[in-house]
Amino acid sequence: MENKGLIIVHTGEGKGKTTAALGMALRAWGNHMRVLILQFIKGSWNYGELAAIEALSSADGCIEIRQGGLGFSQRGDGAQEEHRRAAVELLQMAMDELQSDAWDMVILDEFNYAYSFGFIHADDLAQLLSARPAHTHLIFTGRNASEELIDQADLVTEMRLVKHPFQKGIKAQRGIEF
Amino acid sequence: MENKGLIIVHTGEGKGKTTAALGMALRAWGNHMRVLILQFIKGSWNYGELAAIEALSSADGCIEIRQGGLGFSQRGDGAQEEHRRAAVELLQMAMDELQSDAWDMVILDEFNYAYSFGFIHADDLAQLLSARPAHTHLIFTGRNASEELIDQADLVTEMRLVKHPFQKGIKAQRGIEF
Repeated sequence: MENKGLIIVHTGEGKGKTTAALGMALRAWGNHMRVLILQFIKGSWNYGELAAIEALSSADGCIEIRQGGLGFSQRGDGAQEEHRRAAVELLQMAMDELQSDAWDMVILDEFNYAYSFGFIHADDLAQLLSARPAHTHLIFTGRNASEELIDQADLVTEMRLVKHPFQKGIKAQRGIEF
Repeated sequence: MENKGLIIVHTGEGKGKTTAALGMALRAWGNHMRVLILQFIKGSWNYGELAAIEALSSADGCIEIRQGGLGFSQRGDGAQEEHRRAAVELLQMAMDELQSDAWDMVILDEFNYAYSFGFIHADDLAQLLSARPAHTHLIFTGRNASEELIDQADLVTEMRLVKHPFQKGIKAQRGIEF
């Protein structure tokens, strides 16, 4: 059985992109892999996930989450430039961490968002992928995955919305939506 | 904010149906919800997930997993009847647990498989849904979700395969595929 890191993408308009990445983080943790989660959008992971990650981190294992981006809600003059700076800093952290070979799985949550907004460019992505140790799995989430990323990926899943509770007038539920 | 249990379905040919349910279990656990996972196919959750659930269960929280079904690999004379019996027993357990109101989230992993094979019927499903306390979330996973289930569901996501590593000749990887 070869030990090859995969490039995995969760994209599409539906639910479950980040949630499935969380599930993969936990499966990997249970297999004694070292897991780093980098969030390109602050607030896309909330109290429940953070508490679960914290509990696993306190148990016997190596899992860590770092927030680098700004929230979706931050707008207005100068916000664009702040978003860009935050994304670039987190990307640099991702490169440094990959080069240090300290992780078996790195999740770049909402990377596609930062990429599609032009905060991260094709050559940054190429550099990131070439910084990856051969055994390390990379997971990218977010709508509108770029063609450049899909070309390089091994496993791409599109989460497609078939039916949503908001369509039935049901409000967001704690533990489900947030 | 109303407290309404949702009926959630993860279906489609792609990856991430069970994995996203695992992510939801952990988010719910982190929100102090009581989570029960019932597996209609033995072996669809493996060592990594089970170790993670075990760690969360040992930490401060209420999460439990029970295997009721047989493995995909069990075939041959009589296997069909054994599969049916295992599915019916697990369904009965699901009804009893829902009626006891001991859970905030119940995941029926690979329920759609048991349903599409005819081990569970439309009236069983109707009975299951009516046994559910109003605040309890139900999550059904598996390919080929039935029309009856989708009709009743609040949130349906189809996981669609865009690209798979086997297409590139890459073998299954520990911590990712199993």
